[in-house]
Parts: sequence; C-alpha cells; structure tokens
Amino acid sequence: MAAHTTMLDFHLETSVITDPIQAKNAQQLLSSILSEWKFNQVMVIETQPGFIIFYQGANATHGVIHVYSDGYATVTLEEGVSCKQASGTVVSEAAKVIQKMILDKLKLKRIKSYLPMKRGGPIDQFITTSDNRLVEYDFDKVIYEGDSQYQNIKILHSPSFGNMLILDELQNIAESDLIYTHTIMRHGINDYRGKEILILGGGDGGLLHELLKENPKFVTMIEIDDMVMEACRKHLRSVCGDCLDKLKGDNYEIIVADCFPVMKKFIEENKTFDYVFGDLTDIPITDSPHGEFWDFMRDVLELTLKLLAPNGKYLTHGTGLNSVHPQEMYEEELRHRSVPLEFRKFSAHVPSFLETWVFYEIWQVPPQLSNGSVENGDKRILSR
Amino acid sequence: MAAHTTMLDFHLETSVITDPIQAKNAQQLLSSILSEWKFNQVMVIETQPGFIIFYQGANATHGVIHVYSDGYATVTLEEGVSCKQASGTVVSEAAKVIQKMILDKLKLKRIKSYLPMKRGGPIDQFITTSDNRLVEYDFDKVIYEGDSQYQNIKILHSPSFGNMLILDELQNIAESDLIYTHTIMRHGINDYRGKEILILGGGDGGLLHELLKENPKFVTMIEIDDMVMEACRKHLRSVCGDCLDKLKGDNYEIIVADCFPVMKKFIEENKTFDYVFGDLTDIPITDSPHGEFWDFMRDVLELTLKLLAPNGKYLTHGTGLNSVHPQEMYEEELRHRSVPLEFRKFSAHVPSFLETWVFYEIWQVPPQLSNGSVENGDKRILSR
Repeated sequence: MAAHTTMLDFHLETSVITDPIQAKNAQQLLSSILSEWKFNQVMVIETQPGFIIFYQGANATHGVIHVYSDGYATVTLEEGVSCKQASGTVVSEAAKVIQKMILDKLKLKRIKSYLPMKRGGPIDQFITTSDNRLVEYDFDKVIYEGDSQYQNIKILHSPSFGNMLILDELQNIAESDLIYTHTIMRHGINDYRGKEILILGGGDGGLLHELLKENPKFVTMIEIDDMVMEACRKHLRSVCGDCLDKLKGDNYEIIVADCFPVMKKFIEENKTFDYVFGDLTDIPITDSPHGEFWDFMRDVLELTLKLLAPNGKYLTHGTGLNSVHPQEMYEEELRHRSVPLEFRKFSAHVPSFLETWVFYEIWQVPPQLSNGSVENGDKRILSR
Repeated sequence: MAAHTTMLDFHLETSVITDPIQAKNAQQLLSSILSEWKFNQVMVIETQPGFIIFYQGANATHGVIHVYSDGYATVTLEEGVSCKQASGTVVSEAAKVIQKMILDKLKLKRIKSYLPMKRGGPIDQFITTSDNRLVEYDFDKVIYEGDSQYQNIKILHSPSFGNMLILDELQNIAESDLIYTHTIMRHGINDYRGKEILILGGGDGGLLHELLKENPKFVTMIEIDDMVMEACRKHLRSVCGDCLDKLKGDNYEIIVADCFPVMKKFIEENKTFDYVFGDLTDIPITDSPHGEFWDFMRDVLELTLKLLAPNGKYLTHGTGLNSVHPQEMYEEELRHRSVPLEFRKFSAHVPSFLETWVFYEIWQVPPQLSNGSVENGDKRILSR
C-alpha cells in the first residue's frame, strides 16, 4: 500500500477566528463541506485563536483542518492507495470540489491546491536537491540496484532522462546529461589534444569517454568502486561508450583503487598532469567547513596541486547554484591552500538534477602575480 | 503565516497490526516517541487492522500517524511558521530524530523521509508540470504581476532560471530557455534565410528575436495580449532583445489582434508563408479531444494549412513528454485534417519547465505520396 496526501491552503479573515461565534460558524461550514465527502469530524481542538479539526474518512482515509492564529488555514487529506495507483484517487478528486466549495462558501479570493504527495510507491520518486527543494521524478523502472562496500548504487529509468545513476540517494548522471560532462570539461574552450589528464573518481565513465574524443596524450582514471563502473558499463552506455569495457586502452588506464595512495605514488615519481578532474563527492552541504568530507576535500586539493603541471588546471564540480554558503566556504578553502590559487566558476542546468550546477576551474597563480589580488570578470585571483 | 508539512513513511510487519497486543505496543511506542517532541496523543481510531492516531503538538502544531491495513504507515507533522522561514523549523528538525527513533525502536530497515512541503509562503513555489509531478521552484522575487483581459501574467525571478514568464499558472519561458526557442525552430536544421514567416502568439518575443537573427525575408507576428508583450519587453530582454520595442521593423511586423480574423484576411489575400509557428496554447491535457481548447487547436490548424506555401512547414510546441495520451489525441487530429499531413516529433529538456517538452513539425504530404502511408524514423506520413 501507498498513500496520497492532498493539500489545500487559504487565509481566513482574522475576525473570523477571533470572534467565537464566527469561528464556530467556520468550523461548522468546513465540517459540513468535508462531510459531503464522507470525512466525519471526530475532534475539534480550540487553540484560541484558531482551531484544529481531525476527520476520519470512508475507506480508512483521514483529514485535518488546521486554522492558525492569524487565519492561515491548511487542509490535509490522506488516502491509502494501491502501490500502482498514480493519480485520480478519490481524495484528490474530492479535493478539487472541496476547494471550490470552500472558496464559494467562505467567500475567499483564492485557495492554493497542491498536487498530491505520492508517498510510499514502489520506486521512490523524491530525491533531494542540494537546495532542499521537493522535486518528484518520473522514474518508471529500477534497472539496477546493489550495495558495494562503499555505497548504495541505483540505476533508475526515467522517460525524461533515460537511465540515471543514483549513489547513496544523490543524483550522479543520466543519459540526458552530456551538458554536465561538457561543462566540467569546458568543452570547446579547453584544448585536450596531446595532454596528460588525471580523473579522480569518474566511475560513470562519462568524463573518460568524452575526453578520449579530444585526442589526449593519455588519460589516467582512479576510481575506487568497480561495482559502479560495472553497472554503468552495462546500463549507461550512451554516457560511457565502450571505455569501461577494459581497464586499459591505447591512451588510457583505469586504476581501481583509493585515489590517495596512487596520487602519493605519482607525486613521489614527480609525475604531473595538464588537467586533473575532481569527479568525487560534491562540496559538502554543511553549516561549517568541518567534518570528514571537508577534510577529504582539502586532502584531495593539496595532493592535486602537487600533481599539476606549471600551467595545469584542476576542474571539478561544486554544488547546486543555490547552495551559496557551501560555495563560499569552498572558496575560502581555496584561499588557504599551500600555494596561491586562481579560480573561475561556471554553471549549467543539468536536466536530471532538476537543478543548476556550479563548476570550478582552479589553477596556481603564476609566480609574478602572486603578490596581488585582482578580480577580473568571473576569474578571481586569491593571494594570501 | 505559512506551514511546513513534514512526512515520513515506513512499513510495519503485518503481524504487528493484526495482533491486537502488538498493535497496542506499536501505538504506545510511536506515541512515546512523538511525546518526546511534545506531540501529545489526543485520539486513537482503531481501523482494524490498522489505526490512526491524532496528535496535538506544542505551539499549535499537529501530527497524524496512520497505519493502514497492510502495515504501511505514514507520519505527517505540521507546523505553522512565519512566511519568511524557509527551512530548519522545529518540526522538520524533530522529524530527523523521530525517523531515527522509529527505525531503531521498531527495528525497521528503512524509513523514507520527505523534504517538508513549504505551504502558504509569500511566493507560490509549486507550479504543476504537464505530467502532474510536484516540483518546487526557487523563486525569490515577484518582478511583475498583472491581469490582462485574457490572462494572469506573472514574471518571477529564480536564481536558477532568471526571470520567468508564467501565464495563468503555467510556465511559458524563462531566461534560461534558449533551448526552447531553438528547438521549436529546429535551429541549425531549418533554413530561414529569405523566408516568409508567420508567428501565431509568441508574445514573449523569443521566437521573433531568434528568427530575426536568421535573415528571414519578413516575419509577421499576431499576438492578442499586449500586456504580455509589455511585461516581456521590460523584464525578459535577454529573451526578446529589442524586437518588442516597436511593432514594426525593417523585416517584421507585430499585429496586436486575435489571430483568427487576421489569418482569414491573409487567406482571402492568397498570402502564404514558408513557416508558420504555433506559439499559442499547448496541447490540452484532457481525457478526450473535446472542449473549447481542442476546437481552438483544430481551427488554428485548419487555417494554418491554408496559409502554408507548397513546401511550407508548421512548427508548434506540443506538451510534456510524459503526457502521452494528449500527444496521441493530437496526432489523431492530424490524421483528420482537410489535407493529408506528415509530421515529425522532437523533444528537449526545458530548464524552467523542469520537464522535457515535445515539439511538432507538420507539413502537407506532397501529392504523389498521398495515397500511401509510411513510417520513416521519427517522421510519419498520415494518409486518410
């Protein structure tokens, strides 16, 4: 079983709730409207001013009307439905008529009705955006689900986005999201021909696949979770092409490992890269820049800086556009690295994220500039 | 005042609700958890099997736990908040702990928690998608609101999408949506150089602005609502450029009128167009192809067919990708026109719609082909 929660809200005149007679009338009017839809009043709680009325409906439904102290009022009706039932339930149909009746009988100008929250269905349609907006997806099929030793891996199909990779309940990439890979690459702006490239993470294979089209000298990818790669190799082929079919190609190698020891080995070997891609976790959404995710991010950044060739660039995804404070904290972190850094921010609406995403390009300030600080368009030079 | 409605759901073992003793224990356990957060049980309704418990919370909050007959259970907690309060309310914070406590004490594997529904705020963040998904926008400012004699016109600002035009509560276009205009134009595929073009509707000016970049011979636009044009001229300049600043230019004219009499006049004058754009209402989302919107759509189509030059094309937006039945009904309509038609469908994710949108390119079957019916890729020839 699942449930649909149907909601309305509206404002009553303050006088309606401060005057006991008018308040009683409003209660009776609302209950008489709901009773026409077999929602029977079971209890009234006076909150003075305001009231809460609980209703039991037919077929084990329930409802609540809550009128707050300033006259703001909510109606919430809930109905158990079969897991397959997507819409057009009794309560959501009733809500349309109830809305009209309340509007007419209470002589209101406006009632807001919300689409029913479809809860408890066989596929969870609600994934959190970085800025805490409630968005409902259109997933129609679980293509793959598994738990690796690192994370929960899901690939769900959506008519809008094709197959979509979800790691620990976070949107990663879908077949609709070439814009994501092109934006992190600064496709058409950065020149990858003949370049040495390192990808940290990138298990969906999207970056590797798109970079290999640019005739690089060599791409090294370090991904810890081979279950992610295997799932994407099978179910996200329009994203990764055939590049995950084998771990080594003419001009690329995938190292299945934790990136830290490999990066340290590369540093010892004095290996450098023209481009390093940070395709690991996003900027953590926290109130302060503390905790294991921030430590991880700082460690990645420090090791990356040691691996960048003199004109090398570090490209990484940031977070959602509206998660402004995490971006500010990240940029503050960039100010406190072992070498002075410059960065550029850019953003793109990523279809399957239902959100606009921010990306960073970061590089070391050339020595002759490192005593000053300038702002130049979207490029900021940070000196300490 | 506004409200946040916070929801959880989970599944209890069927035995827990069919055995009266276990059911009573579960009730007591759930109420003891909620009471720690000052939600006091005010009433239990036994629905056998299953139960509904109503709670009154501190500060005029309320809650309901509903356990359905198969053990599916919902928790819904509501809290009045000030209109400006966006998140981090007492109840939504409590919900995180309540979630964990229920998980532990009832020994469950999984509880789904939903982001709170933010109801009744100063700007309505919920606009319906064509496929009835609940999506929350990030509007932060009302730029313009007015009622013309035809419709309610709103321009809201969103950090993600820039300024966004909303007509009668439906998403029209935002500054993020060049892809919309380019897709309806088949930008880069159709050649508009030296062509005669007619736009029906198009009051946001986006189509006119983009078409004028393609060196057409002349673009005629017929838009009924000059209040829409005035609002877009002021607040959507990145969409319409300066093309709405005057009604006539070297190679365009905007006729402020109902399109029907103008189209009929053009037909009488034997005027034809290489491209006609239908930028009026979308395909109606209804169960059957009846009612005034379908009549309107059929009338527009018939007049358009009379205005198309021999190789002319009619380009129009359809509806959301998942609104399959309305598309089928529309295509059935195309099969019953006065002349045999071919069409091609294409789609694009439109950022501000938070939805993938379907577009049509429609043209008359050349006479030598009109006795057959073929399917060729995405192009369908419809003969009667």
